[in-house]
Amino acid sequence: MTYQPLKATNKLLLGPGPASVHPEILRAASLGVLGYLDPEVIKIMDDTAELLRMTFRTKNDLTLVVPGTGMAGMEAAVFSIVEPGDRVVVATAGFFGERIVTMAERAGGEVTAVRFPWGGPVDPVELERVVREIRPAVMAVVHAETSTGVLQPMAEISRIARDNDCLLLLDCVTSLAGCPVEVDAWGVDVAYSGAQKCVGALPGLAPVTFSSRARAKLAGRRTPPQSWYLDLTLIEKYWSGTPRAYHHTAPVNLVYAIYEALRLAHEEGLEARFARHRAAALALRAGVRAMGLGLYSADEVMLPPLTSIVIPEGIDDAKVRGMLLDEYGIEIGGGLGDAKGKIWRIGLMGYGAQQRHVLLVLAALADLLGRLGYRCEAGAALAAAGAAYQGAK
Amino acid sequence: MTYQPLKATNKLLLGPGPASVHPEILRAASLGVLGYLDPEVIKIMDDTAELLRMTFRTKNDLTLVVPGTGMAGMEAAVFSIVEPGDRVVVATAGFFGERIVTMAERAGGEVTAVRFPWGGPVDPVELERVVREIRPAVMAVVHAETSTGVLQPMAEISRIARDNDCLLLLDCVTSLAGCPVEVDAWGVDVAYSGAQKCVGALPGLAPVTFSSRARAKLAGRRTPPQSWYLDLTLIEKYWSGTPRAYHHTAPVNLVYAIYEALRLAHEEGLEARFARHRAAALALRAGVRAMGLGLYSADEVMLPPLTSIVIPEGIDDAKVRGMLLDEYGIEIGGGLGDAKGKIWRIGLMGYGAQQRHVLLVLAALADLLGRLGYRCEAGAALAAAGAAYQGAK
Repeated sequence: MTYQPLKATNKLLLGPGPASVHPEILRAASLGVLGYLDPEVIKIMDDTAELLRMTFRTKNDLTLVVPGTGMAGMEAAVFSIVEPGDRVVVATAGFFGERIVTMAERAGGEVTAVRFPWGGPVDPVELERVVREIRPAVMAVVHAETSTGVLQPMAEISRIARDNDCLLLLDCVTSLAGCPVEVDAWGVDVAYSGAQKCVGALPGLAPVTFSSRARAKLAGRRTPPQSWYLDLTLIEKYWSGTPRAYHHTAPVNLVYAIYEALRLAHEEGLEARFARHRAAALALRAGVRAMGLGLYSADEVMLPPLTSIVIPEGIDDAKVRGMLLDEYGIEIGGGLGDAKGKIWRIGLMGYGAQQRHVLLVLAALADLLGRLGYRCEAGAALAAAGAAYQGAK
Repeated sequence: MTYQPLKATNKLLLGPGPASVHPEILRAASLGVLGYLDPEVIKIMDDTAELLRMTFRTKNDLTLVVPGTGMAGMEAAVFSIVEPGDRVVVATAGFFGERIVTMAERAGGEVTAVRFPWGGPVDPVELERVVREIRPAVMAVVHAETSTGVLQPMAEISRIARDNDCLLLLDCVTSLAGCPVEVDAWGVDVAYSGAQKCVGALPGLAPVTFSSRARAKLAGRRTPPQSWYLDLTLIEKYWSGTPRAYHHTAPVNLVYAIYEALRLAHEEGLEARFARHRAAALALRAGVRAMGLGLYSADEVMLPPLTSIVIPEGIDDAKVRGMLLDEYGIEIGGGLGDAKGKIWRIGLMGYGAQQRHVLLVLAALADLLGRLGYRCEAGAALAAAGAAYQGAK
């Protein structure tokens, strides 16, 4: 058997992530390998940490990327902050909330899951009732639930954590750099994200930030975190120790890519970037509605980077996604868990959040749905998307 | 503060890893992002697993890359195979053997470390004595100790594991694709490696393979592995499940790179590749000796991809390495742990294992050492290296 060199393809990723990236990111990833203690690498790491602080809107010293995907970020965060026997309350209304439950249980936590219907937000009243009863060490919430496309009411959630004196852990995988994340203003103690969504970098790295309260808990652990690879006390010594201590061989090409992505994000400006994500999402939602399709989440809790659409009766989920990929080279996402087969998830993240992508995916969907017997008016959808975009700009 | 776009540099990495890579690897890494279940990605993953089986020389079904660096490979391997309370014997004669001790202890194992002097191999007689006494579930060895540049006597070690009916765990981070690794022939149950050394890919991925015996132990665990991110039962469902189940967002650009690196390795042929590493190492050793410098390991246990040189009396380790990097753009490694400040480690790995790199590093070292007052004859070193290379070819 012979194996062929890889060929370039040119797919447009409009699913829940990874997202297609700016061409400069791919250029950065192709720069030559450097050693993990090379002075150039140290400088890039320092700048990356500073750019991350600006992105998380925090002054936290412990702010770095861990050498794994967003799920590595979740494990590093949860395993560091949850000790065996700690009471943990997880507010969950989707797939990734359930992942935190799993992860906190594996860390030995006594976990109480407060479950809310998928497609809606967390109910702060019920959450606070449970938190008052359990008095957890840690309260965990998914800021932007990737499985449903819902953003949580952070003012309420952060007040509950403060009033009940528990550490607040926030999953920002799909929100960071796509909509406001205010780690310091919200009093978030532990936050993590992924590189491959609104940050606009390549998959394989996870930004993490810890407040001084969270650091103190980590430093005072009775037992080391279960993972050695994702032990933040060790990773921090590599990122900012004096001297820097070898922990792992940095996946340096991915570090180049996330530095470059964060640099571009701040060149654009975070507020402008949020507005771009929001305008594209409003255009998509208007177009989807004009096609007669339903949205899975209400406008008030919409998550700009990710829009979930209810699949119309009689339309085959996998068939439509397969045709979109084969005929148009466009990837969108299906549902996860409870929402499997019921929704499509369209991500407009980072470089993907452009009006031209909105028009393209609406036009392609209208074509395919029309051929499958679902009547919808492409012209009306495009007109509605155009008007919504102009209105939002 | 403004942040600048990254500029390309052109350093030659001749340390203990990461190694400089073939230009085709960097091209592969710069191909567009694809989704983690895209049919193109699935094909690349299947081919990568098959190429890895050829590289490990195994028929093991469970053969894949985990989404992290070589240390993630170590954690995935050790955490999967070691259950709390398991007796584990680790034969250690270097930094990475000690890491396995740490990792196995964190996994809850009752670990017995059998320590041998750094710079030499494991003594099979003493190892077997301890194994007979302890009767461990798992015996672990670092095949190629990156901290010293020593290769272990695998015939003896594999016999000890077989005769004493324990699972054999082998760290192949610095040996895989640079010198023979015979997973099936040696009866190795668990092996892991890194992408960034002799495999010739980018840092950030770790190949792992499990025998059917090791899989059975993993499947029969009383408790799940401590790590969720590196739980091979979950990662395997993504790599080869029916249907494939989402576990993490594949760091797909790194997967492109390792596919391409493995493809190139098999286009070259493993035996030819081993011979290339060996010829370059013999040339380097001859040149080093001709300069009057000492080698840290004996010829009989030499590890072709990595040569450790004893730093001459009165020469400042960090100064020489700094000058090499600043003036010549060449990275070599210093010592780790017990060997810190005592040795230099020169890696000739993957794309790095070329005679022109041997000549360059000898010439540069001779220049710097001469300027620092250590008398050595560059001409003699280059002539000796040339002759050794021609002899080995």
